[in-house]
Amino acid sequence: MEFTLNQIAGMLGGEVRGDGSKKINMLAKIQDAKEGQIAFLANPKYEQYIYTTNATAVIVQKDFQPKKDIQSTLVLVEDPYSSFTILLEEYHKLLSFQKTGVEQPSFIGERSKEGKGIYRGAFSYVGTNVKIGDNVKIYPHVFVGDDVILGDNVILHANVKLYAGTRIGNNCVIHSGAVIGSDGFGFAPQEDGTYKSIPQLGNVIIEDNVTIGANTVIDCATMFGDSTIVRSGVKLDNLIQIAHNVEVGKNTVMAAQAGISGSTKVGDNCMIAGQVGIAGHLVIANNTSIGAQAGISKSTTEGEKLIGYPAINITEYFRSYAVFKKLPDLNHRLRELEKKVNGQGSHSVETLDNGQNGES
Amino acid sequence: MEFTLNQIAGMLGGEVRGDGSKKINMLAKIQDAKEGQIAFLANPKYEQYIYTTNATAVIVQKDFQPKKDIQSTLVLVEDPYSSFTILLEEYHKLLSFQKTGVEQPSFIGERSKEGKGIYRGAFSYVGTNVKIGDNVKIYPHVFVGDDVILGDNVILHANVKLYAGTRIGNNCVIHSGAVIGSDGFGFAPQEDGTYKSIPQLGNVIIEDNVTIGANTVIDCATMFGDSTIVRSGVKLDNLIQIAHNVEVGKNTVMAAQAGISGSTKVGDNCMIAGQVGIAGHLVIANNTSIGAQAGISKSTTEGEKLIGYPAINITEYFRSYAVFKKLPDLNHRLRELEKKVNGQGSHSVETLDNGQNGES
Amino acid sequence: MEFTLNQIAGMLGGEVRGDGSKKINMLAKIQDAKEGQIAFLANPKYEQYIYTTNATAVIVQKDFQPKKDIQSTLVLVEDPYSSFTILLEEYHKLLSFQKTGVEQPSFIGERSKEGKGIYRGAFSYVGTNVKIGDNVKIYPHVFVGDDVILGDNVILHANVKLYAGTRIGNNCVIHSGAVIGSDGFGFAPQEDGTYKSIPQLGNVIIEDNVTIGANTVIDCATMFGDSTIVRSGVKLDNLIQIAHNVEVGKNTVMAAQAGISGSTKVGDNCMIAGQVGIAGHLVIANNTSIGAQAGISKSTTEGEKLIGYPAINITEYFRSYAVFKKLPDLNHRLRELEKKVNGQGSHSVETLDNGQNGES
Repeated sequence: MEFTLNQIAGMLGGEVRGDGSKKINMLAKIQDAKEGQIAFLANPKYEQYIYTTNATAVIVQKDFQPKKDIQSTLVLVEDPYSSFTILLEEYHKLLSFQKTGVEQPSFIGERSKEGKGIYRGAFSYVGTNVKIGDNVKIYPHVFVGDDVILGDNVILHANVKLYAGTRIGNNCVIHSGAVIGSDGFGFAPQEDGTYKSIPQLGNVIIEDNVTIGANTVIDCATMFGDSTIVRSGVKLDNLIQIAHNVEVGKNTVMAAQAGISGSTKVGDNCMIAGQVGIAGHLVIANNTSIGAQAGISKSTTEGEKLIGYPAINITEYFRSYAVFKKLPDLNHRLRELEKKVNGQGSHSVETLDNGQNGES
Repeated sequence: MEFTLNQIAGMLGGEVRGDGSKKINMLAKIQDAKEGQIAFLANPKYEQYIYTTNATAVIVQKDFQPKKDIQSTLVLVEDPYSSFTILLEEYHKLLSFQKTGVEQPSFIGERSKEGKGIYRGAFSYVGTNVKIGDNVKIYPHVFVGDDVILGDNVILHANVKLYAGTRIGNNCVIHSGAVIGSDGFGFAPQEDGTYKSIPQLGNVIIEDNVTIGANTVIDCATMFGDSTIVRSGVKLDNLIQIAHNVEVGKNTVMAAQAGISGSTKVGDNCMIAGQVGIAGHLVIANNTSIGAQAGISKSTTEGEKLIGYPAINITEYFRSYAVFKKLPDLNHRLRELEKKVNGQGSHSVETLDNGQNGES
Repeated sequence: MEFTLNQIAGMLGGEVRGDGSKKINMLAKIQDAKEGQIAFLANPKYEQYIYTTNATAVIVQKDFQPKKDIQSTLVLVEDPYSSFTILLEEYHKLLSFQKTGVEQPSFIGERSKEGKGIYRGAFSYVGTNVKIGDNVKIYPHVFVGDDVILGDNVILHANVKLYAGTRIGNNCVIHSGAVIGSDGFGFAPQEDGTYKSIPQLGNVIIEDNVTIGANTVIDCATMFGDSTIVRSGVKLDNLIQIAHNVEVGKNTVMAAQAGISGSTKVGDNCMIAGQVGIAGHLVIANNTSIGAQAGISKSTTEGEKLIGYPAINITEYFRSYAVFKKLPDLNHRLRELEKKVNGQGSHSVETLDNGQNGES
């Protein structure tokens, strides 16, 4: 990437204060930026750096009033943070769209079709009867099973595995090691104590604009015609488990190492923190917010905020936990009171204390 | 798959009521089934659908008494659910046994031998001195290290990794991304604060009829001749961690994201729920049942049911947790009582209350 | 490996008591050892086995005084356990250094350079402009993205994935399925409820002597020039999540399935147990010790030992938990006391009890 400041200002709908012909080849943080780089200032607590930075240019809010001299050329915009994000995206596109064409050796089965502008890396494997949209990037060691459908602009990073029959919408990004469509965990107990596998014959449907993190696993649905479904806009972090027949609603965000058990339906716009576990066959309502490591054992109502194990309302949990931390004191106070009350009355301590002293 | 209803009835030991020459090419749920498909009715709450379904045939219990007209041909059997499962299995076998032969490029080292009817996908890698049984399926990107032994009918899905020396019994299914035989986590602390790796020289033995989920990891044993062992019939879900020198007993079932620390011996027929953690060097007795997210810090006795952290008896945990949720009230009640008792007596409040109020 | 006992004694700086020309081809535990094998005796509780073992030789402390006849030849050393570890390492080196050269097909991009004595397995993929040090082992199905730097003696087991720009120091071992440099989990919420991906443009730096377990994931930093950093000597177990912009200090050890959220800085020499979760933007001080499954929600001070959720001091946690297990009793005792006190006074039970009985 090399752009003039005039080009950048044009891209951002902004205005250059200074020499618009200067060239930029990199983005950087204001405190680290060097010559040839552009930074931004959004948070006032970083203002000090604008007076000392070596950045060739800094993106600032159009009403910004400098308190001292500034060496860098300024690019004035409405919202410096958003503008910088736009530049980041452009840069990222340039980087990630470098790769096109087909590297050899790679494998593609019979009756598979691919769109325009695709990249298929060496050692990638595409099965039979696969449909691949435009501008799809399939990195090395990716496995695409038979009958898979991939929308446009999908990126499958190195070693993504899609079992047969998986469907992926447009603009999805799937990171290395993610497995989509593996067998659901279904076993029928037999009289002799063994388990018999229940064939898993459904598939997984991922809608548009979904991101799936590294080494995350999404199992297929059990029955023909059934699907485990991840709705549009969902963002899944790394090492997440999504069991068979789960549905994850639109724009729900899930942090690393969370796990959803079979047949649970998660609503739209939920926030699920790291290492959360959700039991099977539940309905998690829209806008539910679940704190880290919580264990969800029953369905939720819209907008609930939960934590703990089994999870309860977050405020109540922390109130109870505050007392939990003082339980030895509480126990001591109770014993003192028992001594006093029973000393005043006719009952013996033994009948009330039951030998419980909390230190065993 | 295309079968006549007479063929299907023969397979199930059932009887056709209607035209047995009709052809079936797919299985489906009764509420979704279309022409050419067969469904089943086992649970009475779905009975309504049998009167409206488009299924060509429905499998029903032989004593089933329709309340209205039914368009579909009926197949009468002893147990509709079991019969349907048999059909599912047959269908699944047909699907999964499509692939045979060796795709190129693939790699197989010196002195490795393979049985009949095998499939080795493109980009699969089999090291030297490997023994592969009959009807084994090795999908693309599988890595089989040197000196590995694979029994008959083993399925290694795309990207399974078996370190050198691993042994897999008959009829095992291992899902994508699972890693078997990686180094145990063993490091000797040195005087300068660094850690020295302890070479991990044992292996992993997986007995017959074991299923291992996607991205699950099983480490090898530390010493020569020692093995991390997974006994026959064990079912492991996705993203599970089995550390070095662990033994998992027969027919034990473990849900996703559970983790077993080094040298722990898990008994037969245990049920271990999702995200459970078990400490090292423990003995988990046969038929132990461990609830989701529990942390097991000591050995168990046969038939125990545990939950919590550290885990205790499940009934006791929930009884205590019920009070936990009311701890602020409990604290309040205790303070009220202290005021009353100390107001009646001669002691000052300060000496008993210690400033504890549970809201800090 | 086949060595004479004289060669082994020379290697260990020890002394043979008996026939030094005997040959050893394997190491084993004293209770299992067979002819041709060498074992060791360090822990006195295993002394009984030295009188019955079939080992050709046993390594013992030089002052060891047998109580009965011993069939095996003895090798006398200062420290039998350390000596045995040295032999294990030598054996391991012999095993793992067997592989050198380049297997075909494999892929290496333009401008990539490699040192001496390297191994690159079949189906491994090395991108453009990669620098590979001496004695590096790249197993089959490894993906090394563009611009990666690998130090000397690095081992990348089958299927390790290194995104573009990753840097790995000397003597690092990375196990199968580990993903280094995947996108951080960064999404900006939009007004319409969707999330926009924030491009992740930093990288990951792994210093020297680091071990990374199977299927562990380390995300890249968000900004150009920023790095997620794993300092020298760190040991990470399997299935761990390290989020973007995290720094893990020297010689810190982390057990399986732990997760560190974005921008948290973990100090040196910390011990982090299995399934621990650490929130984002925290500072974990040097020598912090965190118990299994703990949830860390705030920064720690040097040497703290924590457990629970949210984590507190380990001693306090267990004291409180001891009372937690007796909460139903505590509640009962409080009610009894309330009855007694209120029976003595003028207040009714109802106003204090609030209907709380702990069994709901």
